[in-house]
Amino acid sequence: MKLAKTIGWAPRALVFLTLAVAGVVVWSSQGSSFAQDDKADAKQSAAAAKTEAEPAAAAGVEPDGAAESSVEGESANSASGATKWLVAICWLLSVAGSITALWFARKFYLWMMEQDEGNEQMVEIAQAVRDGADAYLKRQYKVVGIFFAAAWLVLMLLSWVADAQHPLVPWAFLTGGAFSGLAGWFGMKTATWASSRTTQGARNSLNEGLQIAFRSGAVMGFTVVGLGLLDICLWFGALWYLQDLIGFKMSLTEITVTMLCFGMGASAQALFARVGGGIFTKAADVGADLVGKVEAGIPEDDARNPATIADNVGDNVGDVAGMGADLYESYCGSILASAALGVAAFSGSVDNQLRALILPMMLAAAGIGLSIWGVYLVKTKEDTSQKNLLKALGKGINYSSLAVAGAALLLVMILLPGNIGLFVSVSVGLLAGWLIGWWTEYSTSDEYAPTQGIAKQAESGPATLIIAGISEGLYSVWVPIVVIAAAILLAFGFSTGGAFGDADKFALGLYGVALGAVGMLSTLGLTLATDAYGPIADNAGGNAQMAGLDPVVRERTDALDSLGNTTAATGKGFAIGSAALTALALMAAYVEEVRVGYERFGKAEVAEVADGEVVKLNKRAVAVKHNGKVETYLVMPKGRSVESQTLTEAVRSVDSGEPLMGVNILALAASGLLVNNETATIPDFVRLYDVTIMNPAVLVGMFMGVMLAFVFCAMTMKAVGRAADGMVQEVRRQFAEDPGILAGTSKPDYANCVSISTRAAQKEMMLPSLLGLTVPIAVGLVLGVGGVMGMLAGGLTSGFAVAIFMANAGGAWDNAKKYIEAGNLGGKGSEAHKAGVVGDTVGDPFKDTSGPSLNILIKLMSMVSVVFAGLIVKFAWDLF
Amino acid sequence: MKLAKTIGWAPRALVFLTLAVAGVVVWSSQGSSFAQDDKADAKQSAAAAKTEAEPAAAAGVEPDGAAESSVEGESANSASGATKWLVAICWLLSVAGSITALWFARKFYLWMMEQDEGNEQMVEIAQAVRDGADAYLKRQYKVVGIFFAAAWLVLMLLSWVADAQHPLVPWAFLTGGAFSGLAGWFGMKTATWASSRTTQGARNSLNEGLQIAFRSGAVMGFTVVGLGLLDICLWFGALWYLQDLIGFKMSLTEITVTMLCFGMGASAQALFARVGGGIFTKAADVGADLVGKVEAGIPEDDARNPATIADNVGDNVGDVAGMGADLYESYCGSILASAALGVAAFSGSVDNQLRALILPMMLAAAGIGLSIWGVYLVKTKEDTSQKNLLKALGKGINYSSLAVAGAALLLVMILLPGNIGLFVSVSVGLLAGWLIGWWTEYSTSDEYAPTQGIAKQAESGPATLIIAGISEGLYSVWVPIVVIAAAILLAFGFSTGGAFGDADKFALGLYGVALGAVGMLSTLGLTLATDAYGPIADNAGGNAQMAGLDPVVRERTDALDSLGNTTAATGKGFAIGSAALTALALMAAYVEEVRVGYERFGKAEVAEVADGEVVKLNKRAVAVKHNGKVETYLVMPKGRSVESQTLTEAVRSVDSGEPLMGVNILALAASGLLVNNETATIPDFVRLYDVTIMNPAVLVGMFMGVMLAFVFCAMTMKAVGRAADGMVQEVRRQFAEDPGILAGTSKPDYANCVSISTRAAQKEMMLPSLLGLTVPIAVGLVLGVGGVMGMLAGGLTSGFAVAIFMANAGGAWDNAKKYIEAGNLGGKGSEAHKAGVVGDTVGDPFKDTSGPSLNILIKLMSMVSVVFAGLIVKFAWDLF
Repeated sequence: MKLAKTIGWAPRALVFLTLAVAGVVVWSSQGSSFAQDDKADAKQSAAAAKTEAEPAAAAGVEPDGAAESSVEGESANSASGATKWLVAICWLLSVAGSITALWFARKFYLWMMEQDEGNEQMVEIAQAVRDGADAYLKRQYKVVGIFFAAAWLVLMLLSWVADAQHPLVPWAFLTGGAFSGLAGWFGMKTATWASSRTTQGARNSLNEGLQIAFRSGAVMGFTVVGLGLLDICLWFGALWYLQDLIGFKMSLTEITVTMLCFGMGASAQALFARVGGGIFTKAADVGADLVGKVEAGIPEDDARNPATIADNVGDNVGDVAGMGADLYESYCGSILASAALGVAAFSGSVDNQLRALILPMMLAAAGIGLSIWGVYLVKTKEDTSQKNLLKALGKGINYSSLAVAGAALLLVMILLPGNIGLFVSVSVGLLAGWLIGWWTEYSTSDEYAPTQGIAKQAESGPATLIIAGISEGLYSVWVPIVVIAAAILLAFGFSTGGAFGDADKFALGLYGVALGAVGMLSTLGLTLATDAYGPIADNAGGNAQMAGLDPVVRERTDALDSLGNTTAATGKGFAIGSAALTALALMAAYVEEVRVGYERFGKAEVAEVADGEVVKLNKRAVAVKHNGKVETYLVMPKGRSVESQTLTEAVRSVDSGEPLMGVNILALAASGLLVNNETATIPDFVRLYDVTIMNPAVLVGMFMGVMLAFVFCAMTMKAVGRAADGMVQEVRRQFAEDPGILAGTSKPDYANCVSISTRAAQKEMMLPSLLGLTVPIAVGLVLGVGGVMGMLAGGLTSGFAVAIFMANAGGAWDNAKKYIEAGNLGGKGSEAHKAGVVGDTVGDPFKDTSGPSLNILIKLMSMVSVVFAGLIVKFAWDLF
Repeated sequence: MKLAKTIGWAPRALVFLTLAVAGVVVWSSQGSSFAQDDKADAKQSAAAAKTEAEPAAAAGVEPDGAAESSVEGESANSASGATKWLVAICWLLSVAGSITALWFARKFYLWMMEQDEGNEQMVEIAQAVRDGADAYLKRQYKVVGIFFAAAWLVLMLLSWVADAQHPLVPWAFLTGGAFSGLAGWFGMKTATWASSRTTQGARNSLNEGLQIAFRSGAVMGFTVVGLGLLDICLWFGALWYLQDLIGFKMSLTEITVTMLCFGMGASAQALFARVGGGIFTKAADVGADLVGKVEAGIPEDDARNPATIADNVGDNVGDVAGMGADLYESYCGSILASAALGVAAFSGSVDNQLRALILPMMLAAAGIGLSIWGVYLVKTKEDTSQKNLLKALGKGINYSSLAVAGAALLLVMILLPGNIGLFVSVSVGLLAGWLIGWWTEYSTSDEYAPTQGIAKQAESGPATLIIAGISEGLYSVWVPIVVIAAAILLAFGFSTGGAFGDADKFALGLYGVALGAVGMLSTLGLTLATDAYGPIADNAGGNAQMAGLDPVVRERTDALDSLGNTTAATGKGFAIGSAALTALALMAAYVEEVRVGYERFGKAEVAEVADGEVVKLNKRAVAVKHNGKVETYLVMPKGRSVESQTLTEAVRSVDSGEPLMGVNILALAASGLLVNNETATIPDFVRLYDVTIMNPAVLVGMFMGVMLAFVFCAMTMKAVGRAADGMVQEVRRQFAEDPGILAGTSKPDYANCVSISTRAAQKEMMLPSLLGLTVPIAVGLVLGVGGVMGMLAGGLTSGFAVAIFMANAGGAWDNAKKYIEAGNLGGKGSEAHKAGVVGDTVGDPFKDTSGPSLNILIKLMSMVSVVFAGLIVKFAWDLF
């Protein structure tokens, strides 16, 4: 029970830490009356001052209906007292929400630890799996630690030497990675403790086994959401309430954009967890099956198979830690991106910016509370059937989703009463997640036509089965794409009141889309519980088999596993759907990063220039010092008017860094030819960089994004092949060197197989990961901002489709095999079954390695672009 | 020899027709001194007049270096005498080139027909295949005919009732389809006549067999390029030189844009040929293999197998007719798109427009001449080895490609001496095609690592073989994508002199890209010959097997077949590479269609309005009648200046079709807020419709494009599955009902199998085809021009990647199987071989149905969008 203490200790430390922060906040709010009265404000007041010179623009950046709390002259430039208190309360509630999540995670964990561990052999087997998982995790975190140290160094250099980033970015990056790693560690620990207890529970009854597995899954779910929201709350609290204390004065834009960078830490951690875990689990699985099942003819999970422990470790490593890190990243990414977009959408009113910023955090907090309620809704009688349990589970998710929609209405009415359409955006996200989950189930469950059709093709052999699986998988992308497309249009349309073409409401529309992602993920605590519970049940089955328990136990754990497959389908729908919406929101957040990049660029370049002198930064921007304050202006592309032509000529004729003569900034800004960087809209930046489909740089960027998705997919799949090959060799070697193993007289060397999978996973994850990390930077340096956005769009659209294709084809093959094993089409041992096994093996890397890794890739590309935006702005090749 | 006469007669008729057109041209040129002095000119003079009001814009639309023949006041508005004669000579040379191609096609055909047909049994078998092919083609053309009639009616309604198109479009559509069908018919006829002759040739020597097969392939090659270029020449001749005669006065823009619409006819024909042919051939192939080879245990192409004739018919139907129609469409599409873009790029100078228009036609004509030279370069000694033949073939292609580059330099120097960079664009296209072809060979030939690696995985069974094939296929997309991306950037960059961001040179850059596609396809006569020769050799092998000839004959035809596989790989590279570049050019051409759509829209709306009154067309355009001439102006999106805001308000406040008060057109045009539709650049339209990545309509369009590619792929694959199932039932039925068939005592009913494949192909091709035809229109009506362009970009990038993945994975599996059959890894009959057969069967629909169909899809989407642009402009939902 040593670990139990550790985990019990951790939330307490977090509570203490948070209370300390909250205390300082209350203290500082008393001392300075929440006043934000110097540098950060100066910038916002400059923006507001600009509105007088550009009345049209100012009218534009103010969304309709936000009028009652909008800027009204100088006095409104810092937040009003009411807003300050409201936001502070919301912030405290969010912190409370995150701590509640952690508290419940601890509660479920302690409950699980109290359950019976089973007989000695079961404990021993569980210990072996635990040791394997520990060994993997230690090694994994060492490798990842080295990567993080190197990346941290690069980011420090970028911040301090190249001055292309905020100095806090490297630290944000580190905490993102650390919290994500922590969540994975807790989740995997819990899962490995839970397996033998689940087996023991299943010895008593199906229901007891389910309760243990599901509650243990909930530990993972609530740890992820708790740590995610806590990290966000702490950063916001520190950067906003304690900025005097820590010495960094920042505007709300800078704060949200700096916080976004911790998403890249979570993203990198998730990448390694998903790719490494995916390779580990499938190398062990395929290796164990090929030699054990096919060559030696021993059953699955047989204790004589040296790779069987590695196979069980793999379930924890890939499906628990990998899935957790993946969704941790989506969860944080969606909240952070919507916060950044909220600030961009309501520029001009600090009040509304703050309210828009806190809304996603409050939604997440409300989601946590309602998810916990959902967990308690999942109540059944002791002697219930599996079907009833599934119903109960569905009831929990459906009720809490509906309640979240209600909470969203309430929160929007309180925080942004003029933008009630945002509530619809949140609901659209919830509905889209539910629809994609439902479709995934339809596409992969053997109760429906697609999977049954695939199974039927097994009668003509493996070839037709494979063709059927691939074509059904390709076909199945249509519903998720239509749902996501509709969700984007509806979330955008409702949040802007249907003003699709209005440049001034653009950020508001994208804020709506991001809130949709937050809505979709708000019940993550619950949906992730149903996801993480599957591998626990799977491991419990392995434990039962290896410990040689009564077959009825294995039957019960198989039933649990099968129920887990169904619920996992829903979870996968949420994972990929939210990844798509988050990636879209991150594309918009990227534009915000470009804005901050220009701000830094301008400040660095005109530091030593005389007041009033206009300096060219690059062909797209100039900067000027005005009364000691630096302002950066975007030079809009050449138009047809004479003025515009003259300006373009003037900019073209000097070198970067040189002063620009004869330019009347105010007149040019009034005519729209120069746009102040601070008040520029997303469409302004898009126009500045000509991020249009017909721009060759953008189109080539799109091609690069598509290539990245395909090649990344191929690399992870090839890695599984190579790693599995190594495992096959090892198992064959052990069988050959010690015939006692197969006879059951001597024990195989489990640890060596775990170590092979571990080493292979860590070796093989490097190349695809580096590809995902470096290509976005290379594309940015060569093709510029336009190329990056093209790449993000191409990677998002095609990666989304490939990920769904892979997940659904793989899931359908898996269930088609199970359908045959259940006695259909000849049952176990028939030719059809052999074909089904081929399909399942092909599907393994599809659904557990390559497909899920693409989820991460599409977010990682955006995150890397976000973090390196400042670099790209400054150093991109100036050709495009 | 009845058919020989038919084919001999057809070119003569074409020569006569062409000479008649040429005669009328010379006559009319004498009569009117090539003058273009009324309506068409009036429009161009208006454009020139506008240049005085908008000096900046005028300076812009004039590419550098074209100065010596540029507009200089009113006198230069019709083409200069020198240009007229130069273009007329070029036109006559192009006509001559196309007729030369047809003449050589006839020559090769007649030579082939003189060869020995072989013994009676061989003739009989060939006759059976011929009858099957005839039956298929008749039925296919009947179905396609009905479709064409219906589509023609729709287009007529659009032209005459809705007035959304030029009245000649329906007729252009018809000729495009008819000429493509004619080319397919000639090619397939030749192929079916050639097979038994090739077998007979192979009885004498390997070399003789090759000569017959290759020359017969050349018939297809030169028929395609001859008919394609001729169709283009005739249309241009008629619309430009005979416009007085036929009564349609058109500007060069209207002419090129109308001609583009015949591309849709070719595209639709190609779609049906590829999809229908692909389903036919793979249904027969898979059906024949599953029952014949696997169940009954008889060898491939055994005469006892009822599906064997259908299988042989399928080779002709899918690989000859399908491939021919596919490349006919690419060939015409690239020439037409570059002509349209050339006219757009040099707007302001009719001289240069004409020169830019004729350049791609001249390139094609030069390519024909040099391809013929290439055919004669393919000379070897009588007793040569296969390797030497391959070398000789490569020599022919390489030398003629180099020569085309030289010819391009010469032509650019003569026609557009100020834009010598265009020569580089053409060369880049040639090089890109060669590189993609080389990579395809590397990825699929069993002489290289990827395919050998796949074959090696066969030792662990079908599952690992499938995983290896899929991962290698996915991986193999990177080179083609990088090559195409680099080709786009280089072709664009060199043609514009590196001015990537310059809106005024945008069309010029895209013209360069389109010329790259023309360059890639200029040697099509030769490359298609090497492609079409494969199925002829394949059929010859079937003939040898069925006729029970000496096994050495089968060995020789197998060697020919294998050589054909290698050359076909190169051909496939050209097909997909050119499809990508053509699709990109068509996206730009689409914008030109939008321009013409607005012109028609404006004319229709202000027909009965007083002179000088400004009428709103929709929220993006207004029209005005000025001295009886209608001018359409684009209302550029709201900017930040007061003027711009006022204009937007004014336009918003009235309904479409209502007069707009208080708008000073000339002042607004001078300030760039209104842009004359005639002088608007491609970037102007892109901005008008906000075709940026961040526009939700565009992003949703991209998702739709990706979905279309995946679902189309899935549908064709599923269709093969269903059709093959029907074939399996039929073959089983015949075997069961008449045991004499397997005993060899009674003849199976070949015709019924052919008929089953035919019916299945025609039934199954409808749904995917309708999807490809209707989705672009639906997307356009709902999401507007921006959504369409997003869809085209998404479909192009992801469709390109999926097509290459499918083609390479399929090809590699095929060759991995052959590699094992050649005695490696256990050879025929081993477990590895069984796994190899599974891979080959999975690869069949990959490489011969779904992959190639995507080539068509990405061009078809563009073509449909081009044709329906007028409709979309007028009737799209006004939300975005």
